[in-house]
Amino acid sequence: MRKKWLMMLLAMITLMVYPVSAFAADGPTTVGLQIGMDTAFTFLAFILVFFMQAGFALLEAGSVRMKNAGHVAGKTVLTLAIASLCFWAFGFGLGFGNGNGFFGTTGFFYGGDSTASLFESLAFSDVTLNVKFLFQMAFAAVSLAIVSGGMAERAKLSVYIIFGILFSIVIYPVVAHWVWGGGWLAELGMQDYAGSTVVHLTGATAAVVATILLKPRLGKFNKEGKPVIIPGHNQVFTVLGVLILWFGWFGFNPGSALSPMGGFFGYVALTTNVAAAAGGLAALIASWLYFGKSDIPAMLNGVLAALVAITGACAFVEPWAALIIGFVAGAFTFMTSQWLERAGLDDPIYAFSVHGIAGIWGAVSTGLFAAPRLIEEGALVGGAGLFYGGGFHQLGVQILGVVGTFIFVAVMSFIILYIMKMVTGLRVTEEEELMGLDISEHGTYGYPEQMKLISESESKSKTLKH
Amino acid sequence: MRKKWLMMLLAMITLMVYPVSAFAADGPTTVGLQIGMDTAFTFLAFILVFFMQAGFALLEAGSVRMKNAGHVAGKTVLTLAIASLCFWAFGFGLGFGNGNGFFGTTGFFYGGDSTASLFESLAFSDVTLNVKFLFQMAFAAVSLAIVSGGMAERAKLSVYIIFGILFSIVIYPVVAHWVWGGGWLAELGMQDYAGSTVVHLTGATAAVVATILLKPRLGKFNKEGKPVIIPGHNQVFTVLGVLILWFGWFGFNPGSALSPMGGFFGYVALTTNVAAAAGGLAALIASWLYFGKSDIPAMLNGVLAALVAITGACAFVEPWAALIIGFVAGAFTFMTSQWLERAGLDDPIYAFSVHGIAGIWGAVSTGLFAAPRLIEEGALVGGAGLFYGGGFHQLGVQILGVVGTFIFVAVMSFIILYIMKMVTGLRVTEEEELMGLDISEHGTYGYPEQMKLISESESKSKTLKH
Amino acid sequence: MRKKWLMMLLAMITLMVYPVSAFAADGPTTVGLQIGMDTAFTFLAFILVFFMQAGFALLEAGSVRMKNAGHVAGKTVLTLAIASLCFWAFGFGLGFGNGNGFFGTTGFFYGGDSTASLFESLAFSDVTLNVKFLFQMAFAAVSLAIVSGGMAERAKLSVYIIFGILFSIVIYPVVAHWVWGGGWLAELGMQDYAGSTVVHLTGATAAVVATILLKPRLGKFNKEGKPVIIPGHNQVFTVLGVLILWFGWFGFNPGSALSPMGGFFGYVALTTNVAAAAGGLAALIASWLYFGKSDIPAMLNGVLAALVAITGACAFVEPWAALIIGFVAGAFTFMTSQWLERAGLDDPIYAFSVHGIAGIWGAVSTGLFAAPRLIEEGALVGGAGLFYGGGFHQLGVQILGVVGTFIFVAVMSFIILYIMKMVTGLRVTEEEELMGLDISEHGTYGYPEQMKLISESESKSKTLKH
Repeated sequence: MRKKWLMMLLAMITLMVYPVSAFAADGPTTVGLQIGMDTAFTFLAFILVFFMQAGFALLEAGSVRMKNAGHVAGKTVLTLAIASLCFWAFGFGLGFGNGNGFFGTTGFFYGGDSTASLFESLAFSDVTLNVKFLFQMAFAAVSLAIVSGGMAERAKLSVYIIFGILFSIVIYPVVAHWVWGGGWLAELGMQDYAGSTVVHLTGATAAVVATILLKPRLGKFNKEGKPVIIPGHNQVFTVLGVLILWFGWFGFNPGSALSPMGGFFGYVALTTNVAAAAGGLAALIASWLYFGKSDIPAMLNGVLAALVAITGACAFVEPWAALIIGFVAGAFTFMTSQWLERAGLDDPIYAFSVHGIAGIWGAVSTGLFAAPRLIEEGALVGGAGLFYGGGFHQLGVQILGVVGTFIFVAVMSFIILYIMKMVTGLRVTEEEELMGLDISEHGTYGYPEQMKLISESESKSKTLKH
Repeated sequence: MRKKWLMMLLAMITLMVYPVSAFAADGPTTVGLQIGMDTAFTFLAFILVFFMQAGFALLEAGSVRMKNAGHVAGKTVLTLAIASLCFWAFGFGLGFGNGNGFFGTTGFFYGGDSTASLFESLAFSDVTLNVKFLFQMAFAAVSLAIVSGGMAERAKLSVYIIFGILFSIVIYPVVAHWVWGGGWLAELGMQDYAGSTVVHLTGATAAVVATILLKPRLGKFNKEGKPVIIPGHNQVFTVLGVLILWFGWFGFNPGSALSPMGGFFGYVALTTNVAAAAGGLAALIASWLYFGKSDIPAMLNGVLAALVAITGACAFVEPWAALIIGFVAGAFTFMTSQWLERAGLDDPIYAFSVHGIAGIWGAVSTGLFAAPRLIEEGALVGGAGLFYGGGFHQLGVQILGVVGTFIFVAVMSFIILYIMKMVTGLRVTEEEELMGLDISEHGTYGYPEQMKLISESESKSKTLKH
Repeated sequence: MRKKWLMMLLAMITLMVYPVSAFAADGPTTVGLQIGMDTAFTFLAFILVFFMQAGFALLEAGSVRMKNAGHVAGKTVLTLAIASLCFWAFGFGLGFGNGNGFFGTTGFFYGGDSTASLFESLAFSDVTLNVKFLFQMAFAAVSLAIVSGGMAERAKLSVYIIFGILFSIVIYPVVAHWVWGGGWLAELGMQDYAGSTVVHLTGATAAVVATILLKPRLGKFNKEGKPVIIPGHNQVFTVLGVLILWFGWFGFNPGSALSPMGGFFGYVALTTNVAAAAGGLAALIASWLYFGKSDIPAMLNGVLAALVAITGACAFVEPWAALIIGFVAGAFTFMTSQWLERAGLDDPIYAFSVHGIAGIWGAVSTGLFAAPRLIEEGALVGGAGLFYGGGFHQLGVQILGVVGTFIFVAVMSFIILYIMKMVTGLRVTEEEELMGLDISEHGTYGYPEQMKLISESESKSKTLKH
């Protein structure tokens, strides 16, 4: 009797189970669905980061004078082309291929999904390798776009092309390998969720080396050595650029979760946005206190600096900490950009303040504010920050990562650029610089009709002076 | 024997079932996958709505004169910063927290996914709370961006900042609560799928109150009181702004489905797009009949007005009704913008015609065209419209919602702005207005090189007149 | 005993199975999830392709003179409006409805998801029909945007409107039907993954017919018949336009997979990006060799030409072949644009070189490089290319497709435009052309303040000449 009863039970259970499972047997598996979903999600993140190049094009072009605008904007397309091909041929293998603690040695001339075994450092995620490649390539292109800012309005096009190629091969991928490709900083547990250090500090360090070696633009400092304001020609472009970058950052940071499962990426988006808003307000207030006027470019740089700082910290910190990190980044970037300028540095797009100093702050602040619950929930790297009882260990790792990155990138950039300075020179001639790089490097103005008016006005005012 | 046979059957069934289920046991559950997918989908919608700020920046900057363009564009970044922080601290709780029929009283200083029990009005969807928060925040920012238009070219920056903060705390969230947060209009079954009333009419009502209290721009009306055309300085910007807004609206409306499951969001995208196209053509034709020339800004406003109108109706109406709603919105917005201007209202971006009158039309048209089959399929709120046998009930609810929203927002905006007018004044001085708000409020022109040419030209023509 | 043991086993298995399956029974099915996911993915692709209109607006407006910029940009909004409504009413049915080998005859005035049985050619994918419709509509709008380029700076607005309507009804949908709607080229196995032929060659052929019938712009050729450079007024716009197009192309090509399952779309994105980068560099180098200066518009057109070429080939070719296809497209487009101009063709946006010649190269190169493993994995159409042992069969089909498309579109366009030329004329008057189409067609300048300066400068230089 008991057997009969048991069999009835089994039959009932089996019948309950049967229809669902049978149906599932006809459809895709849940594992297959998650791979599809995670890959689509990361692809969305990739295109957002890719689109940040439009933001850089507008930010940088809007921040320079009309005679250089076509050149500066056009360089962004070149940035994409260089990064796309160099990262495909060498960068992806050096950065994420299997290798030693310093660089990867497998996977050059990236060959598609079937080469996944050559990229063990990326095996933790189920996103298909092609989309991982694209996502990482877009990050490399962002880092290079930052370099481009430091060269604005005076570097030869050929210098940018050659340096861009070398940066995309022997500089960026190495730092990426250290932190994200299983290298020595990864071993130490460095926390850099989406690249305050890897992407931003790396680009900014190369930019500041270029800025120093190139020397200031003509007319940037007066006879007393005081900085002269050379305003950008189009604030609508810079505003649009910053809005596109803020938009693209929702691929940069939340996209680094590589999956929407569990919704942790939404948390990352939340901290990212809070920080950006706080950074913009902080810089606006700082400029109001300092200049007596609310300065729009300052506010825009405050938003960007906060985004740079939260890039590393976004997955590790509470919303209130994100607010503080963003606010400090916005205010501090404003102040340092003023100090560096008065110290004689002419960084036309403030690349070093916005991406370098804020990048360092992002890494350090993670060592202060990293919360154990978030590390467990989704960040998954390193230990608690100083304010959460982690002591100086994580903070020390962060500082080590920053110092190591800065020294490596500065030395490499200096060597490359110094050799180029000796061999070909870095800078266009004085005459070419006065004429504008649109004409000198490309043969046509980016704004031919408007430049005609400007040159008429200039020739008239010269006539009047005589 | 029968038992043996039965057991064989059971074993066979179990074995058929086993591999699939076992596989599923290793992978994620379908419930988990749907949460991930719905959250990712809503995140996509959020970033599209977020990006609409770039559209507003260009639309508004392109529609003003060069001397105010940097100021107007820069205000958009401020809009995002203000809305992000105010909505995080207070707006989300007031709008969607648990409370009474008028506002929410829980969830201030939004604390993340774990606070979901404080936001019962949003529990119907499985999207994670962080992404729901971001989506709602982006809507609040759109509403504030509309206000910004009504203040263009003459309001002090400080006035916009203070009003923006108060709007984001005590005005927008209250209306959102009424309709979407379980408030009294939700109880009555008001149909407003993505915010013709909640977002657009609210913003436009505040804008028109500001417009009236600020009074017209200098030179807008001649000595006979007739309106003078003050054309925007850059139609490429306004075109780009409208294209970005149209693009972003595919997050606004279809994204309000909060899930791709079942594909209803695709239907919403279809009606949205049909309406937008019809609105653009209607306004183009109207301007051709009225001016004898096809006016580009009129066409652009026709697209926007149609999008505003279909925002509330998109999930409730058939494609042919969407065509009618869009066409009427486009034509009607053109006519009302002319009438209001001749009646003495100087609304530089036509914020009230485009977002207010079309917003009202959107709410009313839903009460006319709401189709029972769509309410059942995906819209899920209220009853049939007048033309579908619903009688005047739903139409009455819609009109009540519009009137209630208009009165509340108008009264609140008037009180806030009137106090500010008394205390600090709303408007820059005449001299500052003539100089442009770029200089007066920020200390530099948005277009320094071009403004130099313009001022040279103006000083020369003054010299010639003497 | 054996029975007991067997029953224990069954019970254990059933219990293992039970919890997972029961849980699944409460949640959605995996089939439902895939439909949702594929539909959301294709919707993302749709909005990216939709947004390409912003790219065209900027590319085309930036490439013309200031006096025509508002007109050219505004036409893009009109393009979207026309394509949206015409494709909804007729185009979708003619293109994808059930019918014969030449056009579809069902599904006019598209009625929503429930009409899926009228569109058998689209039944292979599980994406909901509304989103399939939107995706196809966006493609039709891109094809029309290309036509718009060929008419720049001299065609009457009314001519563009009427031709645009007819193009969207009787030209584009017919070619789409041939290749993608189950028509005669589909039967032959023509390979055109995302539309090198269907979208780009079709638009470019109509554009070149318009270009020839319209004749060159005033002043394009000097008295000796040599081409005079008429530079575009804003290279920042053209750069931004190209970046938006490159971004949107990640919807165009990878989105044509209509699903993220299996990750094949990621492969398509990879080849697309490699080609684009190679095309930009090739054109930059070509211009450096030819002009002695690196020409920015040439580089931009190189990127676009490579994207056009890889559009058809992206799913069929290896990364190294994509590199070659893109490089050849970039270099060849540069050369042909110079040759065509010297041959007397005035194609202001180089629409025929970029979209036509590169479109042909895209179709032909697929016949050379199509790899069997990729056809099997995801491309799923036709056979191996010449270099993969496919002989001349596939190459022949590709050439037949190109020739058939070119002849059909050229003849249809010629008939329509020739009749219009006879009846109303295609071109504005000389006086209107000199004044600019912003004023002549719309009554206001797109840049009123800047045009005032330009007209002052022109009237002064006339005075000086007298």
